Amino acid sequence: MTQSNKRVVVQEVGLRDGLQSLSQVMATDAKKRWITAAYEAGVRYIEVASFVPPKLLPQMADAAEVVAHALTLPDLVVTALVPNLKGAENALTAGAHRIVAPISVSEKHSLANVRKTPDAMIEEFARIRHLRDSKSAWRNVTLIGGLSTVFGCTLQGYVLESDVVRIALATIEAGADVVALGDTTGHATPAHVGRLLDQLLPVAQGKVTSLHFHDTRGLALANTVVALDHGIREFDASLAGIGGCPNAPGATGNVATEDLVYMLHAMGYETGIDIASLLDIRDTLTDALPQAPLYGYIAREGIFVGSVPTQLSARGVQS
Amino acid sequence: MTQSNKRVVVQEVGLRDGLQSLSQVMATDAKKRWITAAYEAGVRYIEVASFVPPKLLPQMADAAEVVAHALTLPDLVVTALVPNLKGAENALTAGAHRIVAPISVSEKHSLANVRKTPDAMIEEFARIRHLRDSKSAWRNVTLIGGLSTVFGCTLQGYVLESDVVRIALATIEAGADVVALGDTTGHATPAHVGRLLDQLLPVAQGKVTSLHFHDTRGLALANTVVALDHGIREFDASLAGIGGCPNAPGATGNVATEDLVYMLHAMGYETGIDIASLLDIRDTLTDALPQAPLYGYIAREGIFVGSVPTQLSARGVQS
Repeated sequence: MTQSNKRVVVQEVGLRDGLQSLSQVMATDAKKRWITAAYEAGVRYIEVASFVPPKLLPQMADAAEVVAHALTLPDLVVTALVPNLKGAENALTAGAHRIVAPISVSEKHSLANVRKTPDAMIEEFARIRHLRDSKSAWRNVTLIGGLSTVFGCTLQGYVLESDVVRIALATIEAGADVVALGDTTGHATPAHVGRLLDQLLPVAQGKVTSLHFHDTRGLALANTVVALDHGIREFDASLAGIGGCPNAPGATGNVATEDLVYMLHAMGYETGIDIASLLDIRDTLTDALPQAPLYGYIAREGIFVGSVPTQLSARGVQS
Repeated sequence: MTQSNKRVVVQEVGLRDGLQSLSQVMATDAKKRWITAAYEAGVRYIEVASFVPPKLLPQMADAAEVVAHALTLPDLVVTALVPNLKGAENALTAGAHRIVAPISVSEKHSLANVRKTPDAMIEEFARIRHLRDSKSAWRNVTLIGGLSTVFGCTLQGYVLESDVVRIALATIEAGADVVALGDTTGHATPAHVGRLLDQLLPVAQGKVTSLHFHDTRGLALANTVVALDHGIREFDASLAGIGGCPNAPGATGNVATEDLVYMLHAMGYETGIDIASLLDIRDTLTDALPQAPLYGYIAREGIFVGSVPTQLSARGVQS
């Protein structure tokens, strides 16, 4: 690996994808503490909130305040999810550096999630792009098409790879700076990831750069290995894997940030993140969300410093 | 992948590696039911027992009877672990098709496990080989050097890759037909697996063919992806991941057989194993070992038939 090729961005999405599935609302102060602690642990990309109507998702009612706090931290790249044009306007006004709009490849999921077909959502995405371009202050904001249900869908089942390619290209055509592929429902397998990236990367104009795995079937890290082999260098993760289905104990959601970082460092990648500091933040979660189960292997087993002596380093293995 | 290249052997080791760490002794009849049910699910390689002194490990006091039962099942390849020459004699007398002797690369672990240094254990291995060769009826028995603590050791910490190579070659020199690499303590990471196989395979005369991962840090399946890429086609696994440390709830041991088979089928590999039938065997474990926690993602989440429609097939994906 070359020096630049070793750098991997790990975006913390626990504050958005993790919290949104919990019924217990996390206090705004606790969210701020979490963001600051993650920043101090070396995290430089955080998806901090979702700009949805507070009536629909009380957990995100403080989105603008949370973004404002995150913006006080130098060099932190602040991402916000926006389900529609109104949300995008609010996120842009709040000052988010990156906004991500969810575009489900599964029509059933898209209708359930944003009450629009995938094609209608791409039209909304184009409107969001025009809004972003309408003010000079917003033009530096990165627009991410967050493709969801890319590897399967609990509502629809099978998701055609050709549909993923079609929607990814349409999203790029509509103005996406980045297309992120989300395994929203934990269906991805290593071969599926490889097959899809083999089809998509040659035609995606360098814009498919970020992947988002759930550990529902224990394959998030195996899938990550395949994505790394395909040159992907940005991954979402959620501290302590929070956000698993509250009705299925043990059913994890996003892959745990600390487990992902552990594997990346052990593989010689650099994340800039200190795992021990990440682990300390779990106490903040326990205090703020006493009912939320916390997941993660490394928290239980500890960091093994035997085979990769420098993996505790914030810069990963120096090889 | 070519047709033959798609075939992967999954050896069930729950009856040996799984049970040996449980204090509750499984009744012999339950072991027989498990073996028969695994066989009916398509499993054709089972490590059924360990020939150790019953005083040391009451769980394995019925080893000869369990082997005798396994031998009644046509085409089942019956493996037994033997810690020394006496155990090898008993296993050979019982009729095991393959015997595996554990050779720890970590000296501390070797002394704790078999009260011999690694080099002394290799000498014992050579004696086992001579015993095997001493009777014509035994000469077809496959002799496996089961290298343990290959990727790290809880007692010693760091395990030198050069030590692994040295001991693997000495084990081959001492007469091993197969060298299996065991991540006894769950320390392996994907890069470590790749690095070690890159060093070992070119010099191992085709004898390093089997890997044994523990899921202690959630990396067993990620490690398996790397090993598959290196051409490894035999893996150990334990139904329901039994055998995790009884003092650390949630700390899994061997990777769960059903999770491994699920990933392999989803990757287009053929195992001959039917996952739904495997999942049914978990009830046998619950009945026989009510105190033993069962692990595994697929048991909780179900088999996803969306993205890989034929993965339920006993022969895997027909592509």
